[in-house]
Amino acid sequence: MTGPEIDRLTTLLARLPGLGPRSARRAVLHLIQKREAALVPLIGALQDVAERVRPCGTCGNFDTRDPCAVCADPRRDDSAICVVEDVADLWAMERAGAFSGRYHVLGGVLSALDGVGPDDLTIPALEARCADGRVREVVLALGATVDGQTTAHVIAERLTAVAPGVTVSSLGQGVPVGGELDYLDDGTIGAALRARRPV
Amino acid sequence: MTGPEIDRLTTLLARLPGLGPRSARRAVLHLIQKREAALVPLIGALQDVAERVRPCGTCGNFDTRDPCAVCADPRRDDSAICVVEDVADLWAMERAGAFSGRYHVLGGVLSALDGVGPDDLTIPALEARCADGRVREVVLALGATVDGQTTAHVIAERLTAVAPGVTVSSLGQGVPVGGELDYLDDGTIGAALRARRPV
Repeated sequence: MTGPEIDRLTTLLARLPGLGPRSARRAVLHLIQKREAALVPLIGALQDVAERVRPCGTCGNFDTRDPCAVCADPRRDDSAICVVEDVADLWAMERAGAFSGRYHVLGGVLSALDGVGPDDLTIPALEARCADGRVREVVLALGATVDGQTTAHVIAERLTAVAPGVTVSSLGQGVPVGGELDYLDDGTIGAALRARRPV
Repeated sequence: MTGPEIDRLTTLLARLPGLGPRSARRAVLHLIQKREAALVPLIGALQDVAERVRPCGTCGNFDTRDPCAVCADPRRDDSAICVVEDVADLWAMERAGAFSGRYHVLGGVLSALDGVGPDDLTIPALEARCADGRVREVVLALGATVDGQTTAHVIAERLTAVAPGVTVSSLGQGVPVGGELDYLDDGTIGAALRARRPV
């Protein structure tokens, strides 16, 4: 009962992460009903992003500039690089506001199962960045999954070979802020106990 | 850490029903990462809808044609009109495939609290459609809320005055298909009991 234009828009919106067919339909109706307040600005914003946003040639972040705002910021620390799996993780680190160095987006994690090797990721570029002498610390902010931890170990080994002066660390594991023991899995409780600190 | 273009797109997407700031960020990343497969087609689909989709002058449905596909379909029954609150409800009725007549979108329901009177809705246009002699039945497919039922009563009264030959009905109430008694509210169980039918 709806034309092909509406059906096509609904299908495309339903493919976005977090939206299904039902919420895509609601979104389409919302956009049609608020043409000037929602639909027209959304088209403009999407066009801006499509025309202007590119991956940063240094770290892999998305920005309208290359190098990106993080890589170009003179106040940030050139001697530390935080390695993340994808841009979403970089943004999450920045929202936390806890890291003031540079970033390196891997573009994934190593996976024997999916046939992802070091050269499918930006690991060679990371080695080149670490070998230039300015970098002193690399923080591996990868997920606490099997593939994430495997990737962290491989990167640590390779960096030790090409840049022996660089300290490689990974994120601490333990109880998340606001976490209650009763709701934590055994692995997290064990990791938190091993990472115990004097009060 | 993200440019104003990305922030603006995230804000606009987060305003869509069903998306919050977090899923909007994920959607933006998905669109940037799949520029040709997702972002460019989405811009095209939004532009098509913005340029071509309009409300139908007869029933209020959204379509690229006016009258819309439902109003223009010669196989549909001119003698029955289904009255719905908004276009989402019209689409839901069409998905159910249970009604073969025409539609009339009210654009809301009467609400003393929100100051919505009959002339704020398309009730006068509905009266005009019903007074032309072809319409024999009006089905009020409005929500089973206080405002929905008030609106149904007001419309039934007004239609009886201007088009006494028209039969006005409203949707049956009872146990939803797949519904278990244990999980139904008291009002629905009462309505289902009053609407009991011989087996």
